[in-house]
Amino acid sequence: MKVRVNVMLKEGVLDPQGKAIGHALDVLGFHGLGEVRMGKVIEIEVPAQKSQDEAASLGEAMARELLANLVIEDFTVEVLS
Amino acid sequence: MKVRVNVMLKEGVLDPQGKAIGHALDVLGFHGLGEVRMGKVIEIEVPAQKSQDEAASLGEAMARELLANLVIEDFTVEVLS
Repeated sequence: MKVRVNVMLKEGVLDPQGKAIGHALDVLGFHGLGEVRMGKVIEIEVPAQKSQDEAASLGEAMARELLANLVIEDFTVEVLS
Repeated sequence: MKVRVNVMLKEGVLDPQGKAIGHALDVLGFHGLGEVRMGKVIEIEVPAQKSQDEAASLGEAMARELLANLVIEDFTVEVLS
């Protein structure tokens, strides 16, 4: 069983990587795009005997303790079977 | 309408960032985890008049041209409303 934690900068926090990607896409011919934001995704293999809920709360605990900087980042947790 | 492109290293490609995160989680008390892999996620605001399918194929085109290095990375595209 896998847990996927998505970490994105909060709305309003400047995202220079996203800006650079948006500019590069425009140069490549992808015009008319709006905001581009870049984040990170961490996939963690958790013990298979955990339930969906246990896996989700484990993912949330790991995000809070290490994976996300809650001052500037938001996270979401998905459980993949 | 938003397109989310998830880019992960292919299976078998060494992922030192994932390894470092896995080690740090173990030190923090999250024992018994399996493989940890880290990737990136890019969220792109696309024009609202596009259909789901158009948005998905636009996301795939952007991933192939810029966002993913197909030699070492795989990507998935999701359309968020």
